[in-house]
Amino acid sequence: MQNRSIIRRNRGYRWDGISLHEYKAEGSHFDRITRQTLLGDGEGESSGAAVTRYFEIEPGGHSTLEAHQHNHMVVVVRGSGTMILGDETEDLRFLDAVYIAPNTFHQFHANGDEPLGFLCVVDRERDRPRLPEKADLEKLRSNPKVARLLKT
Amino acid sequence: MQNRSIIRRNRGYRWDGISLHEYKAEGSHFDRITRQTLLGDGEGESSGAAVTRYFEIEPGGHSTLEAHQHNHMVVVVRGSGTMILGDETEDLRFLDAVYIAPNTFHQFHANGDEPLGFLCVVDRERDRPRLPEKADLEKLRSNPKVARLLKT
Repeated sequence: MQNRSIIRRNRGYRWDGISLHEYKAEGSHFDRITRQTLLGDGEGESSGAAVTRYFEIEPGGHSTLEAHQHNHMVVVVRGSGTMILGDETEDLRFLDAVYIAPNTFHQFHANGDEPLGFLCVVDRERDRPRLPEKADLEKLRSNPKVARLLKT
Repeated sequence: MQNRSIIRRNRGYRWDGISLHEYKAEGSHFDRITRQTLLGDGEGESSGAAVTRYFEIEPGGHSTLEAHQHNHMVVVVRGSGTMILGDETEDLRFLDAVYIAPNTFHQFHANGDEPLGFLCVVDRERDRPRLPEKADLEKLRSNPKVARLLKT
């Protein structure tokens, strides 16, 4: 398939030609979250080093608490929420941008009345995430704000 | 500088710690457009292969008509407009996503009453854009819709 340009129109947080997926194919520790790979992974779209995904978390849901060597570039495009970012919590609103550094534990929470939707750019070639071990959790929970929000 | 996570909050399409730049340092063929490099290029943010920028075009303005070997991953996050994408024109609205393939001429136009703002992800290592030559322009102008919109 030749490499050709393509426009994927937004149809209410779904996009032409893009499948809605479970957040992850396996594992646990997440709830009410979906994934759509918007750009960089379609047929003939492999020319670049990165991939752009859209994640959406329903109210009350959260992503996996995890860390990995690759970085994330996140931009919020729907609703609001809160995230664990290393040893802090951060409120998230429309177009807030987050650079998640390598090996930083992070977890997104749609803890308001609305869904939390965000773009997340990653390198095409990347390592698998790791889950926190007991020592990681103890360290994370030393901040009471993190301890209250964290879900495993 | 160590690699650390950072959150950059949206303050009305400006972000904490991010400078507003002229679209390009040199050249012409563009009008009323600014650039902010949101993620991946700050101090200690060089761990990944890509960079996320935000471009904004005031009503009546446009970007350079150009092509390059690297791809663009574009997501509209403010307003609306129209783009030239190869030999077609495409209307752009909130959260429309565009994969611009290598060597495809493209130009963004804020041709409505509102600014057009979009995220554009590129590889950190990339080639310089090239401007259209006479033969490119003749080919592009063979579509009357492109010919009407195109600015050089």
